[in-house]
Amino acid sequence: MTSHRLGELTTEQAAAAVRDSPVVLLPAGAFEQHGPGLPMATDLIRAERVADLVAAKLDGRAVIGPSLPVGVSPHHLAFAGTISLSTTTFATLVREYTDSLYRHGWRKILVITGHGGNNAALGTVAQDYLATHPDLEFAWTPLTALAGQVVAGMGVSEVHGHSGEAETAQMLHLAPELVRTSHLRPGTTTLDELSPLARLSRKDGHPKLALRYDRLSPNGVLGDPRRATAQAGESIVDTVVNRIVGYVDDWLAT
Amino acid sequence: MTSHRLGELTTEQAAAAVRDSPVVLLPAGAFEQHGPGLPMATDLIRAERVADLVAAKLDGRAVIGPSLPVGVSPHHLAFAGTISLSTTTFATLVREYTDSLYRHGWRKILVITGHGGNNAALGTVAQDYLATHPDLEFAWTPLTALAGQVVAGMGVSEVHGHSGEAETAQMLHLAPELVRTSHLRPGTTTLDELSPLARLSRKDGHPKLALRYDRLSPNGVLGDPRRATAQAGESIVDTVVNRIVGYVDDWLAT
Amino acid sequence: MTSHRLGELTTEQAAAAVRDSPVVLLPAGAFEQHGPGLPMATDLIRAERVADLVAAKLDGRAVIGPSLPVGVSPHHLAFAGTISLSTTTFATLVREYTDSLYRHGWRKILVITGHGGNNAALGTVAQDYLATHPDLEFAWTPLTALAGQVVAGMGVSEVHGHSGEAETAQMLHLAPELVRTSHLRPGTTTLDELSPLARLSRKDGHPKLALRYDRLSPNGVLGDPRRATAQAGESIVDTVVNRIVGYVDDWLAT
Amino acid sequence: MTSHRLGELTTEQAAAAVRDSPVVLLPAGAFEQHGPGLPMATDLIRAERVADLVAAKLDGRAVIGPSLPVGVSPHHLAFAGTISLSTTTFATLVREYTDSLYRHGWRKILVITGHGGNNAALGTVAQDYLATHPDLEFAWTPLTALAGQVVAGMGVSEVHGHSGEAETAQMLHLAPELVRTSHLRPGTTTLDELSPLARLSRKDGHPKLALRYDRLSPNGVLGDPRRATAQAGESIVDTVVNRIVGYVDDWLAT
Amino acid sequence: MTSHRLGELTTEQAAAAVRDSPVVLLPAGAFEQHGPGLPMATDLIRAERVADLVAAKLDGRAVIGPSLPVGVSPHHLAFAGTISLSTTTFATLVREYTDSLYRHGWRKILVITGHGGNNAALGTVAQDYLATHPDLEFAWTPLTALAGQVVAGMGVSEVHGHSGEAETAQMLHLAPELVRTSHLRPGTTTLDELSPLARLSRKDGHPKLALRYDRLSPNGVLGDPRRATAQAGESIVDTVVNRIVGYVDDWLAT
Amino acid sequence: MTSHRLGELTTEQAAAAVRDSPVVLLPAGAFEQHGPGLPMATDLIRAERVADLVAAKLDGRAVIGPSLPVGVSPHHLAFAGTISLSTTTFATLVREYTDSLYRHGWRKILVITGHGGNNAALGTVAQDYLATHPDLEFAWTPLTALAGQVVAGMGVSEVHGHSGEAETAQMLHLAPELVRTSHLRPGTTTLDELSPLARLSRKDGHPKLALRYDRLSPNGVLGDPRRATAQAGESIVDTVVNRIVGYVDDWLAT
Repeated sequence: MTSHRLGELTTEQAAAAVRDSPVVLLPAGAFEQHGPGLPMATDLIRAERVADLVAAKLDGRAVIGPSLPVGVSPHHLAFAGTISLSTTTFATLVREYTDSLYRHGWRKILVITGHGGNNAALGTVAQDYLATHPDLEFAWTPLTALAGQVVAGMGVSEVHGHSGEAETAQMLHLAPELVRTSHLRPGTTTLDELSPLARLSRKDGHPKLALRYDRLSPNGVLGDPRRATAQAGESIVDTVVNRIVGYVDDWLAT
Repeated sequence: MTSHRLGELTTEQAAAAVRDSPVVLLPAGAFEQHGPGLPMATDLIRAERVADLVAAKLDGRAVIGPSLPVGVSPHHLAFAGTISLSTTTFATLVREYTDSLYRHGWRKILVITGHGGNNAALGTVAQDYLATHPDLEFAWTPLTALAGQVVAGMGVSEVHGHSGEAETAQMLHLAPELVRTSHLRPGTTTLDELSPLARLSRKDGHPKLALRYDRLSPNGVLGDPRRATAQAGESIVDTVVNRIVGYVDDWLAT
Repeated sequence: MTSHRLGELTTEQAAAAVRDSPVVLLPAGAFEQHGPGLPMATDLIRAERVADLVAAKLDGRAVIGPSLPVGVSPHHLAFAGTISLSTTTFATLVREYTDSLYRHGWRKILVITGHGGNNAALGTVAQDYLATHPDLEFAWTPLTALAGQVVAGMGVSEVHGHSGEAETAQMLHLAPELVRTSHLRPGTTTLDELSPLARLSRKDGHPKLALRYDRLSPNGVLGDPRRATAQAGESIVDTVVNRIVGYVDDWLAT
Repeated sequence: MTSHRLGELTTEQAAAAVRDSPVVLLPAGAFEQHGPGLPMATDLIRAERVADLVAAKLDGRAVIGPSLPVGVSPHHLAFAGTISLSTTTFATLVREYTDSLYRHGWRKILVITGHGGNNAALGTVAQDYLATHPDLEFAWTPLTALAGQVVAGMGVSEVHGHSGEAETAQMLHLAPELVRTSHLRPGTTTLDELSPLARLSRKDGHPKLALRYDRLSPNGVLGDPRRATAQAGESIVDTVVNRIVGYVDDWLAT
Repeated sequence: MTSHRLGELTTEQAAAAVRDSPVVLLPAGAFEQHGPGLPMATDLIRAERVADLVAAKLDGRAVIGPSLPVGVSPHHLAFAGTISLSTTTFATLVREYTDSLYRHGWRKILVITGHGGNNAALGTVAQDYLATHPDLEFAWTPLTALAGQVVAGMGVSEVHGHSGEAETAQMLHLAPELVRTSHLRPGTTTLDELSPLARLSRKDGHPKLALRYDRLSPNGVLGDPRRATAQAGESIVDTVVNRIVGYVDDWLAT
Repeated sequence: MTSHRLGELTTEQAAAAVRDSPVVLLPAGAFEQHGPGLPMATDLIRAERVADLVAAKLDGRAVIGPSLPVGVSPHHLAFAGTISLSTTTFATLVREYTDSLYRHGWRKILVITGHGGNNAALGTVAQDYLATHPDLEFAWTPLTALAGQVVAGMGVSEVHGHSGEAETAQMLHLAPELVRTSHLRPGTTTLDELSPLARLSRKDGHPKLALRYDRLSPNGVLGDPRRATAQAGESIVDTVVNRIVGYVDDWLAT
């Protein structure tokens, strides 16, 4: 019984995996503030756990490659401990992981990112490969966004998101020992608490304007993490895992 | 009566604009195939015209900076005439335009992009500025996406988008002399026409997988441009212009 | 009757142009101060108009690719409104335009630059291609320098050049509506007005020393633009156009 | 009782750590073949475990930052599963981790690398910081090289090193569940087995010549991993941990 | 009596030179074919010797910094032995030399280049410094071009230049022991010998088109080096040296 | 009788050298302070002289390529006159020299560096070539480190190294006219003179910590150069030359 983590395989087992496991999952996180109750590595932890669950369900059709523990987090740099890569460095890193995998024969790469701040850089990687690697299929996915209906059903705050109800719930389910439950405190929960500029930046269907989190929330939290339950977290994670597994099934059938 | 285009002003007028017109609009296009009926510069044309209309309505509160005539279009490179920048080069270009404007004193930059392929690179520019230019407000917006309801009301094909109903309509309104009406032909209009992989890449709420357009549509078109009317185009453009003007009004009030 | 501008063609027409129009003209400008009477986009306007005239005379043997609206203008950054690219970014931009054109099959590229500040970067592009693209013929040309005799015959000031007699004349001919005639004022017109260092930088046949324009002229002008006439401008433009057309004719015959 | 891993702390705890824990340890690994018996992540596993042991002994005077799971491994790329960064990308990654830590106030960074292939790139990072960050103290250390005497006492093969006696011993001590004991097989163990060029590359006190591992050993192993014992591994690890702890103690006293 | 070469001074003497010798001369060469009679290092040799002569005449007002032995020579790469830098690398090298000199206090840098192929890259360095180092005066000069009248008076071939009359003459004067006199052979000497494309590339006052030397001359020579004399070489060198010395005198007086 | 310096050969002779002289030696120096008695170019001078001696002994089996006069010296930048390249620029330079030599057919490159600060960057070059140029054999060597026993036998100070006994001895042998004998003064000679941090940085078998030389020695010297003799220098140089010659002999026999 071999591991579904490439890092736990020997090179001989890796050679077999190129043939038998045509999809490589790359978990990407962030190393950034998550308010007074969640740890800096929250996004990596969620991405790695989801990757494990996805790989287990795929039962040998995918392997998990090395993680990307740090992501693109300039908006959190005002909060102590946050480490951020420039978008170019993050993209280069994803590209060099992928280039090596491609050299060994893999053609289907799926980055699972626990951090939305990585999305733009992942998009640029996907685009640049179109010009140079026509036979590579490079895909990437966020986590929580795949479970929008579950989150909506949780009864979240008017303003919610980073370190809020949904993210805290996932951590209560996946890594409860790392949640400082007694320190969970609401951040910005209503649009009225935001400055006009911050409010503008939160509107959908408008021009996009990125803001630093110190202009969005004094404690770095959007929403009220006290509302989170491990049960809701389980429901989000299950939904996300099933969506990704279903996607890979379809992908392998193309 | 001075122009609202910075390129048509003298340096003395530009010095006044730094004070009186705190927003700079940067129109970004693409130089890429638009099927058998629309010209390569379609996205630039739409972006520049919208910028002109927006600036006119803002009546001196914004000026239009230099255009970005070429964008990120690797997915169209299989079609003759397409010119594409790498994501890094496009981002660097936007950054150097912005750096010079910042040096003169402007703090509010809004890129108006007629091409969705530029979105990811624009996102990376916005992020990287958060780490280095805390007092810069860098915003960007697509066009057609601001008028989703109008487009839905046009009765578009199941599969629609690039060079399809909505884009053709805008061109019929803004630059009818550049539409080869007699050559407008439907491209891919139903999911059934797509390969399984292409169908997978079109699904919402799933992992994202970028594909080259030669795998999506034989003639480079998604949707049926013959359904487009100048009237629908006018409605789209008006909606887009009003949304952007409203945004800038709110922005200036922050 | 199709356009000679590639941006106004469809991809099918572009495919035909690869075969029938072996030369691509790329107009390059600058976005920089041009004294109190000329607009920031002066160099782009002249380059695009000349390209149009050249292409018209070549009657289908050349097409015009996308413009480069911003050039290398660090020497003008002290004047409001100037936008400058670094030499590396400008060169990369030219290279990526050319790379896409090369991919489609074009082998003869001619950059028409209205701005002398782009010359060095264009030279580096030409050199680097020699090592990597032996079958590419990459050429570039300035404008006014092709009509030296005409300019000499205009009776120019002892010190003349940027925004001076010859450049203003071209604008009076090509885009009179953008010339603020009442604001045309002489800049530095004699060597005596220059500081010793500035004078040194203007001598021919000596080491080259680049200086910022704020050290050359208080209002950013070299020469006396009031001496310019539309007639002289027409003569300059005609000469330039004929020289480029003659060159392309010879080039196509090689 | 807080964690000594920065990734398990909240931002408030991180802010305290800047003050109380002046040293940040960064574990660096490699993702590369380790012969038929050891996993690809061997170097990361050893680096992370040693960092944990060091931090535990330092008892709050150091925290562990994010890992670098992939290193510089071009010499192993011929073996399936190996993922390698270019030296520039690895160095940039270390630099961007450090830049963020520096921004928060840390001035003492110690990279603990389980992979000797990272040494040169770490050396370049250290040098470049001398020119730009005079108050930063950037240090780095290999693992096994700190326990040379212990290794010599193990009775190693004439040729030994990668995936050999010492490395396998450490894994038998630290992560026995990931060692495929039944697959451990000797690689190149004597100089006579090497080609003349390979032999030349192994000589000390001579010019350095890097060779790919497929030219050094058919199965990617140098030495005989069957000689390894968990006991020897424990001795190596203890020595390494004590050396690093002693170093940090001295460092904090400067 | 100290040397005028910075490389032969101690750091204490260098500290005095910052104060007493405000100009630093940087000799730049090329490492490229020079036909059957001249050595690869011809351009460096000439640049270094001229720098020595200039510094001697300036008698302490200038020092000579480190050389740039390799230049931008992609046009000669078809000939064995030629080593070429990309334009970006050459420019970066000049910039990093200059940055260090600037850090020590020098503000006047003069690159003396024996190779015309370096001109464009030197031009880009000069431009980029205008945006970032307003108090740096960065100048550069070619050699032979400063002595145009002397060369014209030598009775050169219709086509002449690289490794031809003037360059060979300088070498006969400066380093006769490195000229293989018996192997000097004419290269291309008349326009008629050139292909139409090559002829086009040699015309003045036209668009510029760079060509590889294997398309200009079978043996890499333009002109007839057998016409060269050491006497003519001395005259060229004297003229060049005097022009540069005069320039520096004027410069120091500004 | 042709030169063993490639720069003194014609292109025809270089073409023969590709066939007959399969090894290219590249001398690398530094341009940095060497205390009150030795010149800035000390490392280049030693590298070039050793290369000459090695090439002479190899008698046609190796040629010397262009020098690298400036190296990686950020640790000496506080001392006047020091010029330093970033590690990336130095590595790029070595790579571009090598790329051109490779293009002509050479496959064995040996960089002889007189400066230890270049080692890390040379290591990165060697690694990156493993991934891209499998048939290139890129080697590099320091100088003094090859003669460790000779140096130990000289009776050096407790702290010795840069500009100390061994380096001064080599210069007294190779270039006595450039040694300011009367100014030779001891620098730091005992560990007690060092600050605790500096002492820590000098310990072997520990984590590595790079320090600027102004924190190691007030006059930039480690050791006592007054103990140096030309005789000891000759012995060091002879040993180094013989080691390199022996290495190349073995290399050519592989």
